[in-house]
Amino acid sequence: MIFERLCIIGPGLIGGSIARMARAKGGVARHLVTYAATETSRARVRELGFVDEVADTVAEAVRGCDGVVLCIPVGAYSKVMAEIAPHLAPGCILTDAGSTKGSVVRDLSPLLPEGVHLVPAHPMAGTEHSGPDAGFASLFEGRYCIITPLEGVQPEAVAKVRALWETAGSLVETMDVATHDKVVAMVSHLPHLIAFTICGTADDLAEETREAVLKFAASGFRDFTRIAASDVNMWRDVFLNNREALLEMLARFTEDAHALGRAVRYGETDFIEDRIRRGRTIRRGLIERKQA
Amino acid sequence: MIFERLCIIGPGLIGGSIARMARAKGGVARHLVTYAATETSRARVRELGFVDEVADTVAEAVRGCDGVVLCIPVGAYSKVMAEIAPHLAPGCILTDAGSTKGSVVRDLSPLLPEGVHLVPAHPMAGTEHSGPDAGFASLFEGRYCIITPLEGVQPEAVAKVRALWETAGSLVETMDVATHDKVVAMVSHLPHLIAFTICGTADDLAEETREAVLKFAASGFRDFTRIAASDVNMWRDVFLNNREALLEMLARFTEDAHALGRAVRYGETDFIEDRIRRGRTIRRGLIERKQA
Repeated sequence: MIFERLCIIGPGLIGGSIARMARAKGGVARHLVTYAATETSRARVRELGFVDEVADTVAEAVRGCDGVVLCIPVGAYSKVMAEIAPHLAPGCILTDAGSTKGSVVRDLSPLLPEGVHLVPAHPMAGTEHSGPDAGFASLFEGRYCIITPLEGVQPEAVAKVRALWETAGSLVETMDVATHDKVVAMVSHLPHLIAFTICGTADDLAEETREAVLKFAASGFRDFTRIAASDVNMWRDVFLNNREALLEMLARFTEDAHALGRAVRYGETDFIEDRIRRGRTIRRGLIERKQA
Repeated sequence: MIFERLCIIGPGLIGGSIARMARAKGGVARHLVTYAATETSRARVRELGFVDEVADTVAEAVRGCDGVVLCIPVGAYSKVMAEIAPHLAPGCILTDAGSTKGSVVRDLSPLLPEGVHLVPAHPMAGTEHSGPDAGFASLFEGRYCIITPLEGVQPEAVAKVRALWETAGSLVETMDVATHDKVVAMVSHLPHLIAFTICGTADDLAEETREAVLKFAASGFRDFTRIAASDVNMWRDVFLNNREALLEMLARFTEDAHALGRAVRYGETDFIEDRIRRGRTIRRGLIERKQA
């Protein structure tokens, strides 16, 4: 048993999937407790029955736990940490599933009680759905989970978090916080920013064109809208909490988009072909890495 | 039988799929003839045997045909038209499958012989594969095909092209050339330009970050690279031949991306949430239209 008493704060898509996975696989936690911010969600989790206990306050939820996983929008971390910090048991491992890691360290570290071990983690899995009904046990299977251990952290604590994600079927990697934030800005946050943007751009077109756009959405636009269907609160928080890395990647991208636009304007065939070819190269790289 | 003798110029993904579809469904053409630009492709099509005849010159291919479909990159239209125009039979219907329509009218109309009927069409279907092996009979099933008839064209000619695509299982719509070009710039050409760009941006990152980007490509980036894996010549020509509409949509998009980036920089929560919500709205619109 990795944990005796594991608390999942936020039983939505990610938290609910961790709970269902823990139930399905065994060996993760003897007792599963959760807390959700709304009474509606708490009632729904009780109905669904994928944990042993639904607490009515977050302080009560973490009490006596040897493991706590934050599965809430990263913008809520500092508020929730202020509420739970006084109630975290000595020796407890505090981990999370947030998409940004610099902000997590920034928001959790100052309030971390002596003897509590912080091990930030980021399971790179998700769907466009959210809420207690959205989770499923196999969500993390075969997907990467990045752990970003801080200097001086207890190796046993990192090993337990790693064991949790290996049980979930994830491919666990470790990385420093800054590299993590740059990489996810490029592979995930920037594509989402672009997807949200292009949907808005389409929505602003004149009525007749917009109707035709929706009608004739070919594969390209359709793929963009799929990732644009994501949870509002989560993505607002991700953007705001990985600001520097995201703005750097956005700046690089828009420079490159302008360069390609300029090549189209002036008919610079070689430049255009080169850009298209690079897309194919990257694609081939993904296929070789079995990520495509 | 819609056509007695149908010529498909360019037996690649689209042309090869039309030929296979015509064979599979019957009622499209009594005799199928094709021409490919390279000897390698001609030999391969002969091997695959999905047409009745592979001609060695494009002039020979169109001779005596009552239907000709151009299935080649739109940048090659004027050159090919110069070669076939003197050999097109009176009464022949000349149509195409190109992704841009303004350029098609621009390149074909001036050379159109008296008594030949031009009916531009755009089947909105495709895969990331290309070449004679890539086609399949069901490619167009359930997908839109937009016909952009010119003023004064013979209605019987339009009806035959419509019948061809209805036999293929497509949902046929008609639209004027300018509207077509704007709509496809938004739903297809701009997403491709963005996809090619973001792959290049990733490729330009420092070695270590690039490796990690390829390794951890989450769903967002992966979807982008899927559409970036498209044919180089086709997309170069599409960009160059729908220049005005594409640059307009790119300008609108980059303005919007900058606005969202600025909101992230200054923490403008409401603006960010609004943009994310619009993504979901567009997505819902697509689902209602069964395009998602």
